[in-house]
Amino acid sequence: MPDTVREMETKIIVSNKVTLKNPLLIEGLPGVGNVGRIAAGYLVNELKMKQFAELYSPHFFPLVILHEDGVAHMLKNEFYYLKRAKRDIIILTGDTQSISPEGHYDVVNTILDFVQKLGVKEILTLGGFAEGTVVQKPRIIGAVNRPELLTKYKKYGIDFGAGQTVGTIVGASGLLLGMGRLRNIDGVCLMGETPGLPLLTDPKAADALLHVLIQILGAKVDFKKLDSVVKQMETKIRSTEEVHKKVREQQPKSMDESARYIGCLVILCLHTRS
Amino acid sequence: MPDTVREMETKIIVSNKVTLKNPLLIEGLPGVGNVGRIAAGYLVNELKMKQFAELYSPHFFPLVILHEDGVAHMLKNEFYYLKRAKRDIIILTGDTQSISPEGHYDVVNTILDFVQKLGVKEILTLGGFAEGTVVQKPRIIGAVNRPELLTKYKKYGIDFGAGQTVGTIVGASGLLLGMGRLRNIDGVCLMGETPGLPLLTDPKAADALLHVLIQILGAKVDFKKLDSVVKQMETKIRSTEEVHKKVREQQPKSMDESARYIGCLVILCLHTRS
Amino acid sequence: MPDTVREMETKIIVSNKVTLKNPLLIEGLPGVGNVGRIAAGYLVNELKMKQFAELYSPHFFPLVILHEDGVAHMLKNEFYYLKRAKRDIIILTGDTQSISPEGHYDVVNTILDFVQKLGVKEILTLGGFAEGTVVQKPRIIGAVNRPELLTKYKKYGIDFGAGQTVGTIVGASGLLLGMGRLRNIDGVCLMGETPGLPLLTDPKAADALLHVLIQILGAKVDFKKLDSVVKQMETKIRSTEEVHKKVREQQPKSMDESARYIGCLVILCLHTRS
Amino acid sequence: MPDTVREMETKIIVSNKVTLKNPLLIEGLPGVGNVGRIAAGYLVNELKMKQFAELYSPHFFPLVILHEDGVAHMLKNEFYYLKRAKRDIIILTGDTQSISPEGHYDVVNTILDFVQKLGVKEILTLGGFAEGTVVQKPRIIGAVNRPELLTKYKKYGIDFGAGQTVGTIVGASGLLLGMGRLRNIDGVCLMGETPGLPLLTDPKAADALLHVLIQILGAKVDFKKLDSVVKQMETKIRSTEEVHKKVREQQPKSMDESARYIGCLVILCLHTRS
Repeated sequence: MPDTVREMETKIIVSNKVTLKNPLLIEGLPGVGNVGRIAAGYLVNELKMKQFAELYSPHFFPLVILHEDGVAHMLKNEFYYLKRAKRDIIILTGDTQSISPEGHYDVVNTILDFVQKLGVKEILTLGGFAEGTVVQKPRIIGAVNRPELLTKYKKYGIDFGAGQTVGTIVGASGLLLGMGRLRNIDGVCLMGETPGLPLLTDPKAADALLHVLIQILGAKVDFKKLDSVVKQMETKIRSTEEVHKKVREQQPKSMDESARYIGCLVILCLHTRS
Repeated sequence: MPDTVREMETKIIVSNKVTLKNPLLIEGLPGVGNVGRIAAGYLVNELKMKQFAELYSPHFFPLVILHEDGVAHMLKNEFYYLKRAKRDIIILTGDTQSISPEGHYDVVNTILDFVQKLGVKEILTLGGFAEGTVVQKPRIIGAVNRPELLTKYKKYGIDFGAGQTVGTIVGASGLLLGMGRLRNIDGVCLMGETPGLPLLTDPKAADALLHVLIQILGAKVDFKKLDSVVKQMETKIRSTEEVHKKVREQQPKSMDESARYIGCLVILCLHTRS
Repeated sequence: MPDTVREMETKIIVSNKVTLKNPLLIEGLPGVGNVGRIAAGYLVNELKMKQFAELYSPHFFPLVILHEDGVAHMLKNEFYYLKRAKRDIIILTGDTQSISPEGHYDVVNTILDFVQKLGVKEILTLGGFAEGTVVQKPRIIGAVNRPELLTKYKKYGIDFGAGQTVGTIVGASGLLLGMGRLRNIDGVCLMGETPGLPLLTDPKAADALLHVLIQILGAKVDFKKLDSVVKQMETKIRSTEEVHKKVREQQPKSMDESARYIGCLVILCLHTRS
Repeated sequence: MPDTVREMETKIIVSNKVTLKNPLLIEGLPGVGNVGRIAAGYLVNELKMKQFAELYSPHFFPLVILHEDGVAHMLKNEFYYLKRAKRDIIILTGDTQSISPEGHYDVVNTILDFVQKLGVKEILTLGGFAEGTVVQKPRIIGAVNRPELLTKYKKYGIDFGAGQTVGTIVGASGLLLGMGRLRNIDGVCLMGETPGLPLLTDPKAADALLHVLIQILGAKVDFKKLDSVVKQMETKIRSTEEVHKKVREQQPKSMDESARYIGCLVILCLHTRS
């Protein structure tokens, strides 16, 4: 059945056909400290951006999230847009990332197919940079997908890893850069330093990330609300973590398996360096 | 070979072409305490429902069940129907659920493709709600896939999670709601509170679930037989569990793997909340 | 590339196009005690059967076996045939089974597509029946894929599980019965009782199995050579086990993973009962 | 979307269309002691070979490597070529191998489809041979994919496993031989003895391997630079290992999962014998 086959692929459902002016895609999905997700979510709130598309994937955990109001929702990623004088913005955020390695390639491919049709030629991905230690004043670590982009972003006080040994960016934040390059899409990844405890949300790193981000965007954002917005987001942010925690608590025999999923979600959102 | 490709997909074999009147689909597959499966199985028995289709999937454990009579059977899900004055009923129950996350999306898609052709516009899924503690008088926890449905079901004394923090519904009971929503199919999930020990069947929670269910259906059911029917079902119910238990006992080296399968089966049938 | 897609499927390479008379397929692949594999291998030797096809699959462990002579061979399954007065025989044996659950469905489907074209209407699968304890005089446990077949085989002193609780047959020996049924192919599985230690080859159970098998086939076999033939087969038999053992020894960090593969191979060849 | 489907396959991007004279393919990808990778990388440097194609796969770890210069790169394999008087050479090396068993078959198939179009009729794969003990003077262990090839290579003092019991070659080095055979491509695997500690690079074994390799190729190579080149390669070589080490350190809960990936990468590059 073509339906079945099609449905089994990652797919994007467009609720609102928009025409955008040289749009910049900003990605902030769950990851270490949920830094990217908080920053992206806060921008969506502050800039009053409108959702226009949703992404569903068989590579997401096969569950629905049950909210306090008794309504269950599929795990998904969402696309929001904002029209601006010079250049429009698309923000990609959501509940989760792929739980299988191959799935990441499929999801990122579907995203790139979609945003290229919308005219995206540049991508900015957001994440946390796991230090493994307490972080006093979070630096913003950066990565680009071609050397020429370094000069453009250095002025924002981003640390492009000078003197560091090799590291990696795992998951969508990384693949959007790498696979974007193969499509001649420029890509930059900004990561706020965070201790890197997987189930710990780090608004401080998100705050530092946002300060750099709004400079780049030339946008005005009221930071007073960050904490309260993070609180509002908590339920959403915790949703995928809860299932993992519960599964672990209630199902000793399945710990390996639950760990496997947690492992996936976390590994694939983890930013590491040697 | 198209055959091979087709066969490798989840597929439904129809033994009896039925025409149904605005049918309500009720799903009760293996899960925590096998609550949904017992309730569904008991209804099939009590209402003398007839099987008309079987579902097979490469995402089920690759084994056959060997019964006392020496006959081996494939793992499968079955569809039963009942014609009634006002509205017909379809019950989906069976031996197992997908053992892979992606498989759940495939199986649920195949189910939805099938029942939509039968005219299903509303789905009621049954399951256990893992409390992780002893349960004296099991409540019935509910979830809907759009807010408008809450009023319709509140009168049955279902707890729609008022005041609860986020939780999740994993597996078919959850995805039928979430993926049904994307097809404009209304969905409600009813979960009987149960301790949530994976290999423990909980007829008490099933009994509580059935009492609410027959109110909703306006059906008469003799509950005296529940215990005996549960006994009759035990063999079937234990079949998938046995293989896991045995594998664990006999194969220390494969414990991780068996745990992985058990983990899957259980995780994917597990209802959790924070 | 169609090539890539085709190659990624399980496929059978026919070296010798044969026309067979109402052929009986006998399957004996690696499993508990390698009982089925030894019995099948011994028949191939004793009856001087000729190989006419090989099966390769991406669901087999991605390795080549390196023999003493310095020549490396792909993991594969082989089809042998024997022309006889009344009825021809096909024997399916080989190095391994699928290491993924889904893979088993794909491999068995490909086998059934192939043998159906050769006119196979009946399948006899061979395996070990894991008792988990020392076995003095191995019984032969049987299973059929439809009740009508029981009478036909009872006379051979096969125990069709009278009085047993539910058990399972995992892997090809089970799926050939279950998926064969869906194609109206009769199927019987004969299992020799064995302690069920995964890496232990059990010629005694194979010997018991062979005695029943030759009665069914009405064939003459010299059992004196069994031990020596088992010795000859040892290298082949050990090949897949060795890699797992070595991987475990040499790679502590990958124990979970090696266990995972071992788990797969063993689980999927394991015959269990409650 | 055909794009998505196509992209999800392993694919080779050709940057420079070359016509080659009876080319010999030499494969050296990450594995035990990174012996094959170092030897291949050193040849690419010493012989000043030019890259002409890159291979990307959804079966690679879903990450980008972040280098000191702040530029992120996709994980990939690379093809280099050298035109020579009698016979041209292609070298295949790169960052990683498939992390899934099925993926190995897909990647190797894609490689074989590609090099066959370039006229490759012979393949030489390089790897480490895990001894599990300290190795004083590394021998070169060999394997061929058909007996006739043994004579051709014996003169180079390669040990073709005389007197050894069965062993295996896992991953691309093995499958290129096995799957090449099915395409009538001759294949030889040369393995330098090494302790076999997965995260330890072994230039000594690579040096021994290179001495045999240049004899076979009739090439001149300055070995003085080996150590310095190995140093230059270290960053690249460490990249995939780093992510695994870090993930393990920073993510206790995901140890099973990280181990799983490490397990994969290592298992699939591991050469074992009984």
